Order: sequence, then C-alpha cells, then structure tokens
Amino acid sequence: MLTIHHLRKSQSERSVWLCEELEVPYELMCYDRDPVTLLAPPDYKKLHPMGAAPVITEGELTLAESGAVTEYIIEKHGQGRLTLGATHPDFAQYLYWFHFANGTLQPVMGRNMFLRRLNLPPDNATLVATLARLHLALDMVDRRLREVDFLAGPFSAADIMAFFSLTTMRYFFPVDLAPYGHIRAYLGRIGEREAYRRAMRKGDPDMALLLA
Amino acid sequence: MLTIHHLRKSQSERSVWLCEELEVPYELMCYDRDPVTLLAPPDYKKLHPMGAAPVITEGELTLAESGAVTEYIIEKHGQGRLTLGATHPDFAQYLYWFHFANGTLQPVMGRNMFLRRLNLPPDNATLVATLARLHLALDMVDRRLREVDFLAGPFSAADIMAFFSLTTMRYFFPVDLAPYGHIRAYLGRIGEREAYRRAMRKGDPDMALLLA
Repeated sequence: MLTIHHLRKSQSERSVWLCEELEVPYELMCYDRDPVTLLAPPDYKKLHPMGAAPVITEGELTLAESGAVTEYIIEKHGQGRLTLGATHPDFAQYLYWFHFANGTLQPVMGRNMFLRRLNLPPDNATLVATLARLHLALDMVDRRLREVDFLAGPFSAADIMAFFSLTTMRYFFPVDLAPYGHIRAYLGRIGEREAYRRAMRKGDPDMALLLA
Repeated sequence: MLTIHHLRKSQSERSVWLCEELEVPYELMCYDRDPVTLLAPPDYKKLHPMGAAPVITEGELTLAESGAVTEYIIEKHGQGRLTLGATHPDFAQYLYWFHFANGTLQPVMGRNMFLRRLNLPPDNATLVATLARLHLALDMVDRRLREVDFLAGPFSAADIMAFFSLTTMRYFFPVDLAPYGHIRAYLGRIGEREAYRRAMRKGDPDMALLLA
C-alpha cells in the first residue's frame, strides 16, 4: 500500500493532491510542524536523512523529493496520466513548467524567505536582487497564464508541481499577487477542482487556502 | 538543428555533456560571463526572460531549465537512453537523484553562496543552519556513493544533473570535499569519461576542472 507522509503546510500537499486527481488509493499519515520553530517534528525527520517533504513509503521503498515522488506515483500507479509525452505538441512546455516549479520558482521563494529572516536593510543589494528575481519568475508565470488555462496547456502534473509555491508557500514568504491577475485567476480555477479540494480537506483541514 | 547556448562556467555544461554521451549532433554557441559581475552577458540574457542557463533552441523552440532540457534531449534525440524506466529495479533511485540535483543540492549550494555575500558573522544562526544543510546533502550523496558507482546505480542522466553542483559550482561557493571520500572517488570516475572530457574541452577549454 502506498503511504503518503504528509507534513502539514508543506510541499507534500502535492502528493496528496496528485493521488486524488489520479484516484490512486493511498494511506495518509499527517504530521504537524512544531508550532514555534515551524520545523518538521522528530517523527517526520526520522523518515528521511534530510527531513524533506514529501516522503512516501511503499513496502521497502522510502522516497522523497517532490519531482521524484510525482513521477513515481504517475508511472507506477497512474498509467502515465497527467503527463504530456514526447509526441504531444506541448511536450516542451510540460517539461519546462514541471521542472521550473522546483528548479526555479520554489528555490527563489525559499531564498527570499531566508533573506527576510536576516532583517537586512530594505536597500540591501542581495535582498533587492533576490526579490526582483522572484518577480521576474512570477511575471513569466503570469504571462504564460494569459495564453493558457494551465501551465503546460492542458491540466497536468506541472500544475501540481508549481501550485504550492504560489499558495501555501506564501505562509512562509508572503507575496502580494495583486499585480498578477492571470495567476490569481489560475488559483481560482485550480481551487475549484474537486480533487484539489478533497486533498486539502484531508491533509490540511484547518488551513485557510491562499487562493487569491 | 539542436543548438546549445552554453554560458561558460554554468549549469549548461550539463547539456553539452549529455549530447556528447548520447552522441547527439548539436551546434555549440558559447557565451562568457561578465568578468566583474560574473553575470551572463546581455546576449545570453536575451535568450530567456530569466537569463537562466542552459538554453537550447531548435527551430521555433527555445527551452530553458536543466531538468527540462535534459529530458527533452533524451526523449527527442536520445531514444530514451541514460534513463531508468518504471520496470527497472533502480527506477526510484534514478528519479530521486535526478530530482535531488536541482530540487535540493543546487538550491542549497546557491543559498549558501548568497548568504556568504552578506558577510554575516560566522555564528549567525541562518548561516550555520544553511551550511549544516549543505553538509547533510553532501553526506547523503557520499553514503550513496559508498554503495554504488553512480547515483542511480548505473551511469545515468541523474549523474549529469548532479555533477555540476559538486564541481564547477564550487567556483561560486567553495566546499572542502576532503571529508567525502566517496564523492571524491566519484568525481575521479566521471572525470575519466571520454564524453565528459570532450564536453568540457569544447565548452570550457580554459577552466580547470574541480575533480577532487
């Protein structure tokens, strides 16, 4: 049986949502962050040497890293659904946005979060450049979503990879999305998906969703 | 014709190396970093809204993001070689290390690089925690390489994804690999691969390789 170890308010919401979209059966184990440090609790950290979320287990297998977990579930349990293959006209778009999620967007959110903790003067050059880079990334997403409803074109695993950084991650680094009307419309579109709503009800029932 | 736009001393070395491993024909366009700021030159930044490396072009297509470029070249030009499929016993290992490269290792190297520029006191808590996280990541890699010659088991695209952060990236954030004997042996093993040596000769002929 596939078990999703879900650290609440974390990237593991992707794995719960993916299984709901694919209607793949799974056992859900939920873990709360430490209320003061916001870090994963010791039980969660024991699952993986880096204490990373998500973690899934299945028999002897323990697997972390969002991109890996997503591909694993899709290939092993989802018959390759929610991907676009090499013959699809949007194949390159699919690959780009899938990898952009954790290769660019989430790292730049994380880097801004870290810098903010240092209480630097607001004109610090590194701070200014890192925030500018985040807005460059958001602007790219917004321009893409002016053209299409979902990142790859059709709804796909690229959306499941990217959505966390635009929503729940804003609890860790608040970003005003007012200038990004197409992103906000996209958050609304995804927020209406039954599978997304089921996933969030199961995994993070007490968390208000940042869908605007 | 596939064109690799290679920003010297950057993650785009992966794409050159991948094509050499697969013996996929490509045109190589090289761009030098600004000698003072170390940033990509204006010509390179024009290729992509975020000025990211690698960028490939092919007909109408312009594609960035290492993970996407790697998968694109493998699927479109490499007949799926250098990947492990869902029926391979090391499939999950392949996925993990492929995504670990730019989902964990490279972001934590980048975050350390950024923090170092701020000249914080060496006992700053964020600095200490971020450096500890890097060593946790390196320790994971080292323990994996005690068991196997290459990250997924057999040599694969996971190695091509991860190698930059262990070598060329150390020009941007120096890390002493002395405690990591298995990583150092791995650098030597990869450094002997003809395709790697050809790629580095073509793309970065003036750069000393950090293979120890």
